Amino acid sequence: MRTVLGVGLTLTVLAAFPCHGQDAADTTPPSLQALHAHRAPTPSTLLADAPASAWRTLDPENTLYMRLPQGRVVIELAPQFAPRYVANIRKLVREGFFDGLPIFRVQDDGVAEWGDTTGQKSVGTARRMVAAEFERPARDLPFTPLPDSDTYAPQVGFSDGFPAARDPMFGRAWLANCYGMVGAARGNNVDSGGGTALYTIIGGPERQLDRNTTVIGRVVQGMPLLSSLPRGNGPLGVYRDRRRWVHIESMRVAADLPPAKRMPLEVLRTDTPTFTRYLEALRNRHGPWFKVPAGHVGVCEVPIPVRSPTGG
Amino acid sequence: MRTVLGVGLTLTVLAAFPCHGQDAADTTPPSLQALHAHRAPTPSTLLADAPASAWRTLDPENTLYMRLPQGRVVIELAPQFAPRYVANIRKLVREGFFDGLPIFRVQDDGVAEWGDTTGQKSVGTARRMVAAEFERPARDLPFTPLPDSDTYAPQVGFSDGFPAARDPMFGRAWLANCYGMVGAARGNNVDSGGGTALYTIIGGPERQLDRNTTVIGRVVQGMPLLSSLPRGNGPLGVYRDRRRWVHIESMRVAADLPPAKRMPLEVLRTDTPTFTRYLEALRNRHGPWFKVPAGHVGVCEVPIPVRSPTGG
Repeated sequence: MRTVLGVGLTLTVLAAFPCHGQDAADTTPPSLQALHAHRAPTPSTLLADAPASAWRTLDPENTLYMRLPQGRVVIELAPQFAPRYVANIRKLVREGFFDGLPIFRVQDDGVAEWGDTTGQKSVGTARRMVAAEFERPARDLPFTPLPDSDTYAPQVGFSDGFPAARDPMFGRAWLANCYGMVGAARGNNVDSGGGTALYTIIGGPERQLDRNTTVIGRVVQGMPLLSSLPRGNGPLGVYRDRRRWVHIESMRVAADLPPAKRMPLEVLRTDTPTFTRYLEALRNRHGPWFKVPAGHVGVCEVPIPVRSPTGG
Repeated sequence: MRTVLGVGLTLTVLAAFPCHGQDAADTTPPSLQALHAHRAPTPSTLLADAPASAWRTLDPENTLYMRLPQGRVVIELAPQFAPRYVANIRKLVREGFFDGLPIFRVQDDGVAEWGDTTGQKSVGTARRMVAAEFERPARDLPFTPLPDSDTYAPQVGFSDGFPAARDPMFGRAWLANCYGMVGAARGNNVDSGGGTALYTIIGGPERQLDRNTTVIGRVVQGMPLLSSLPRGNGPLGVYRDRRRWVHIESMRVAADLPPAKRMPLEVLRTDTPTFTRYLEALRNRHGPWFKVPAGHVGVCEVPIPVRSPTGG
């Protein structure tokens, strides 16, 4: 398995990539460049220097492994935002509910969706429907706010590793539908979902979904296995031809695997000085490539870094 | 060729897709639902009812066809924002510069990039480097502002079919790096690009790139051909193995094809009452599925609809 750190960082440093062969001389004196780099770390140097305490290991009880023919997708669950859904999804997974079910919808600049398309598959001891968990009280919720404004919410930030929003006036908080976030499908009735079909965002943010779906977690590894699937040719990206379906081989709770079989993934904590400095490095990009630091960063443009300490 | 309208709309109505078999009874009385639907059209009904004058045909001189083994990508150029680059890119295309060059980088939640990786291929009568066009005067620029705030810019909106930002205090305007926008790669020197390597955004917005690259247009058809490519396994999504490269068969200016061979694509005009109503329909989603209209929409969450009037 390769080290994930590189992957987690590709977005943040994409623009530092000079086009091969087109790199003309930079007019900044080298000495000033070095000074600049010293004073304002880039996101990647900052993460490389982060103390071990800036990282946390995934809780195996809140980690799902979804095995596809192409490889493994790892999902971190967010029980602090959707306790009933997360408990139900764990039950579904432990019943083997998802094993053999398809990814049946891949919508360009939209979502990939998987699960039961029939509504008929037995849920065993789990429930088919769970009362919606679109938002929760903001009180007692860890929250590292972004200083930047957001188009959709009075305040945005990060909570336990997830992009989130909150409304101080009403004391409510909810997860933001950014790239890689995982939510539960539902029908028109708000309480008609239960986790038997799940989606993840594979393109631009879908913030219109905020507070309209129960968001249950985030893909922390394996997004390319979902985002690079062929797009469905039916309405909303549903595969018209079921032969295009990708079948889930198995879905497991990491805690149910022997410790040696679990993936030792670590996620950057979002409640540390390191994370605050990381945000600042994203808000104002430094290094030789960026000329106009934005001075801001959107809540959905902050990749939460994930790494595999063992690398290899 | 299929009608593009459906594709253009999938994003806007994704959440209206009920999960199969899970749809419980909606508690809203049917009569109220109908009233609601009548008073507040959805994005899709609004577009279906739009007058012919709400659409414009692509200018063949500003339209590029990039033929890949998998199909055709259509790019609309934005000379009003990047006149020097657009003129240079037209020259490169007419020299056959891109024919045979690869897509050499596909970065998850980042960009796909294609063009000359060597800096050595002859540019003929074109230029290898062009002075940067990161922004332009806001004066005399058509601009339909969004009423919503933006994390990055004092004001955002739409100009001639492109998502854009402007700063009224300094009188400057620039294109926004949203999904599907196309820009020119460059080295550390701002004037080191010229269009010999181009990128498009295949994941979440890359607004940190705003005013750091010259944005030259937008993919109006064929995004899935780029967004669903396998991700590169090298740093920043560069393919380590050149056997993974996808080679561009040809790139042409539409005007250079006989009229019968051009694609009759139409783009929704962004300076009409229809577009304003479309924005409003996106800001506050109606219909039976949405429960909490956002009251806002981000500049990068507004798909600019494209259709093929001939359909078929």
